[in-house]
Amino acid sequence: MKHILLMDGPDHKGLIYGVTHILYNHNQNIISQDEYVSPSGQFFMRTEFEGEGDPQKIMKDLSSFLPDGLNFRLNPKKKKEIVILVTKEHHCLGELLIRYAFNELDATISAVISNYNHLQSLVSKFGIPFHFISHEFRTRPEHEEAILRTLDIYKPDYLVLAKYMRVLTPTFVQHYPNQIVNIHHSFLPAFMGAAPYRQAYERGVKIIGATAHFVNDNLDEGPIIAQDVKEVDHRFTAVDMATLGKDTEKLVLSKAIKLVFNDRVFIHGNRTIIL
Amino acid sequence: MKHILLMDGPDHKGLIYGVTHILYNHNQNIISQDEYVSPSGQFFMRTEFEGEGDPQKIMKDLSSFLPDGLNFRLNPKKKKEIVILVTKEHHCLGELLIRYAFNELDATISAVISNYNHLQSLVSKFGIPFHFISHEFRTRPEHEEAILRTLDIYKPDYLVLAKYMRVLTPTFVQHYPNQIVNIHHSFLPAFMGAAPYRQAYERGVKIIGATAHFVNDNLDEGPIIAQDVKEVDHRFTAVDMATLGKDTEKLVLSKAIKLVFNDRVFIHGNRTIIL
Amino acid sequence: MKHILLMDGPDHKGLIYGVTHILYNHNQNIISQDEYVSPSGQFFMRTEFEGEGDPQKIMKDLSSFLPDGLNFRLNPKKKKEIVILVTKEHHCLGELLIRYAFNELDATISAVISNYNHLQSLVSKFGIPFHFISHEFRTRPEHEEAILRTLDIYKPDYLVLAKYMRVLTPTFVQHYPNQIVNIHHSFLPAFMGAAPYRQAYERGVKIIGATAHFVNDNLDEGPIIAQDVKEVDHRFTAVDMATLGKDTEKLVLSKAIKLVFNDRVFIHGNRTIIL
Amino acid sequence: MKHILLMDGPDHKGLIYGVTHILYNHNQNIISQDEYVSPSGQFFMRTEFEGEGDPQKIMKDLSSFLPDGLNFRLNPKKKKEIVILVTKEHHCLGELLIRYAFNELDATISAVISNYNHLQSLVSKFGIPFHFISHEFRTRPEHEEAILRTLDIYKPDYLVLAKYMRVLTPTFVQHYPNQIVNIHHSFLPAFMGAAPYRQAYERGVKIIGATAHFVNDNLDEGPIIAQDVKEVDHRFTAVDMATLGKDTEKLVLSKAIKLVFNDRVFIHGNRTIIL
Repeated sequence: MKHILLMDGPDHKGLIYGVTHILYNHNQNIISQDEYVSPSGQFFMRTEFEGEGDPQKIMKDLSSFLPDGLNFRLNPKKKKEIVILVTKEHHCLGELLIRYAFNELDATISAVISNYNHLQSLVSKFGIPFHFISHEFRTRPEHEEAILRTLDIYKPDYLVLAKYMRVLTPTFVQHYPNQIVNIHHSFLPAFMGAAPYRQAYERGVKIIGATAHFVNDNLDEGPIIAQDVKEVDHRFTAVDMATLGKDTEKLVLSKAIKLVFNDRVFIHGNRTIIL
Repeated sequence: MKHILLMDGPDHKGLIYGVTHILYNHNQNIISQDEYVSPSGQFFMRTEFEGEGDPQKIMKDLSSFLPDGLNFRLNPKKKKEIVILVTKEHHCLGELLIRYAFNELDATISAVISNYNHLQSLVSKFGIPFHFISHEFRTRPEHEEAILRTLDIYKPDYLVLAKYMRVLTPTFVQHYPNQIVNIHHSFLPAFMGAAPYRQAYERGVKIIGATAHFVNDNLDEGPIIAQDVKEVDHRFTAVDMATLGKDTEKLVLSKAIKLVFNDRVFIHGNRTIIL
Repeated sequence: MKHILLMDGPDHKGLIYGVTHILYNHNQNIISQDEYVSPSGQFFMRTEFEGEGDPQKIMKDLSSFLPDGLNFRLNPKKKKEIVILVTKEHHCLGELLIRYAFNELDATISAVISNYNHLQSLVSKFGIPFHFISHEFRTRPEHEEAILRTLDIYKPDYLVLAKYMRVLTPTFVQHYPNQIVNIHHSFLPAFMGAAPYRQAYERGVKIIGATAHFVNDNLDEGPIIAQDVKEVDHRFTAVDMATLGKDTEKLVLSKAIKLVFNDRVFIHGNRTIIL
Repeated sequence: MKHILLMDGPDHKGLIYGVTHILYNHNQNIISQDEYVSPSGQFFMRTEFEGEGDPQKIMKDLSSFLPDGLNFRLNPKKKKEIVILVTKEHHCLGELLIRYAFNELDATISAVISNYNHLQSLVSKFGIPFHFISHEFRTRPEHEEAILRTLDIYKPDYLVLAKYMRVLTPTFVQHYPNQIVNIHHSFLPAFMGAAPYRQAYERGVKIIGATAHFVNDNLDEGPIIAQDVKEVDHRFTAVDMATLGKDTEKLVLSKAIKLVFNDRVFIHGNRTIIL
């Protein structure tokens, strides 16, 4: 059985030594170990190991050894379960569905939820439940409540916002803290908010980008996981930029969730540490 | 003799035909011709040609043919004369000096002006006048006035701000309209203003960039000429980002001024058209 | 009606003037015009125009005007018809199918042909004919003959080899001269031939790439249309490189065929001119 | 005092534990530790630490602990001493000199050696010894012998070939095994040998690159340290490609030597592991 041990907290001398000692005593083989200590003295470590031992006993020894204030989690290495939220655009969803169909996603897609039914036909090709939950004739709290009830069916590990074009309220977000990944169609923090390609066109930028980030209470301000860019020139209209940008969006989102689903992303304040 | 004809204004049917006809009549050989019509119907054309004819007569025929409201300029193809403004950082200046020393700059550096004397030693290696004009004990208008008087000696075609870390007032800028090129150490419009690498670090971005732009009345908001980026990760401190960013800054500035000095950059509103 | 005029051949003074004159006389409005003259004096021009006039009459006037040796074609602006050839890998095919399903391909996919049936299920989701033509129990000429007979049903404008892993003979290729686009899983000319990611791993390169090119008689040596790259490091196994490389392959292929299907790609010797 | 411990060899269970234990016992504080185990079971570790202890005693304990076949070196953290070899081109040398002048090189340039005197003037601006050792009227062994004698004055840690355009014989190379870094003006292994930009032009590639690598007995085949690329199009002549390529060359070389001078590069077979 493979496990992933995730630790973060204030650095102490001897942490690596102590942890590797415990794993050694439990006859675990370290497959990979990555650590990082921030200039301010915060310690992060991801250790992937395998062996016959009892995870409970390893946990117990770690718990005794590790100083107070140091967080640690021990995850069995397995696929995450996710629900995808979309609105009308297909490019990110299509990318995830194709990867999923060929077992390349490191996750199981339990369902897709949308406030429109435009993408129902695409989702149905892949045999995945599609929930059309319109925002029309519902207040925002009512709409979010309806989505939350649907999510309760699946109890996903993560929500992936694959071009879900509505702002989530803090009330919604606190149900899935650090478990919601969004793709934003700009190189954040440039062009926050609506119509970023229109804004990019009007500013006359020569490069456009996309940003995958965790969602927290402030729209477009959660910790950034991955970003990428493409060059444009004056010949690009705002529509052309959006067309080109979609390729970037889907690859950035794919890259970000692969990191998240493999337990490689730590959140520290508003930054991510990726090991 | 080679010339570059630059035209911009509202599009009319037959413009390319008319201009190529005139050049044909004057026995000019078109070396390259690039045009662009914006979706809103603005026409831009850069035509490089050579031949024995009389530029004055070509100008006269163009003037008769072209509709009112269409701007045109006929530049002989030759090196621009420039003055470089710097503060303390050497990386952009060093890049320009090395290129200049080996005749790769498409410009003649008439002088370097700085509000510090840190870079005097470097400039003097290359035999170029260095003017140390301190901002200490001078009001901002007095300081800018001193710089303007020095510039009057050289009457440069362009000013290049190669990490000149002071804001120029509109009064100063209007002496050199569309003739001042600045390098900004961020991917504008992200992180405008001071300490952009510190801002980038705190926002936790995964890519940093640099932007070369014309200077207009609003700091960091003039038309963008060139941008480029580099990937960073959580291991980069703000200082590391600045170190890496310098390589981007110097190449983006070099690229931008090469385009400007070759008469390839049109300004339209707050955007550039590069032909 | 929109048309695209494509011209190439030895440069002559007055070509642009003459052609724009003819289009002007026929009351055509030039939407965009791009030309390029190579250092060796070869002229290339792509002119997109629209108007009420009679294409036949425009052709006649062009034919009278243009010097011998200058090739020209007048294409109505419309979607190309294509057949896709694949083997077992799904990533490029999936990309093309999703784009096609949402009308983003600039082409109609008439059919998919494969020497395996692995991808039949994926293709059938999108309602496109799938022809499984095994190479087993057939000689290479017999196999190619069977494919050619199937292609005769569709008479496609272009064949797209979306990871078709068999070498095509010159006999086959001459049926579709300059009409076959292939994606090669390396940064050509590095790592020609089989197992390029294995080769890349063994050479220890720090960047991998993909190349879309026309197919001519020599494997991997046809004119290159588009290339792109990704960074790797020592942590990447050959399998990891292949996984990452697939994202590059599918985007490079998509970019290349968009250029080809929009009549933007000229072939000159073994190089492409893209206007 | 800061030290860097470098280890590589066959992996054994408990290596990290053992080494961190020893450093802990000697009251050393680990600043950073990076390790990598290859799929074939080769272990690499770079540990940077500081403390009051005696390096000799640490070495002794490591020596007792580490299994046979595991190589280790303990380097004090300090600037390397280098000699630069050049021919006529200035762009890489200029980059290194500017960095050196402002203390950004992580190395001391002891001298520059060239088979031409073109760059003497540039080098002399920076007050560094320049040795003009012509290859004319000397056989290749005589020329290399003359260079080796000059190098003996300086006994450099590394030789940097900053566009040194002559092939070094195995006899020469064995004097500086794994201590010679070269910049090659192509994306190796594409376009090995002479005139790579000419070759790139003729092949019609859409991307050009540069490669920094260690020099071994076979020209252009030593372990790659860093690579980077730039996009080109059909408008680029071979000369244009070379001009653009120079920017890539100088930054790739700078990046590579920074890694080497900071003891981050392990050589394993023909690949580099960079920690």
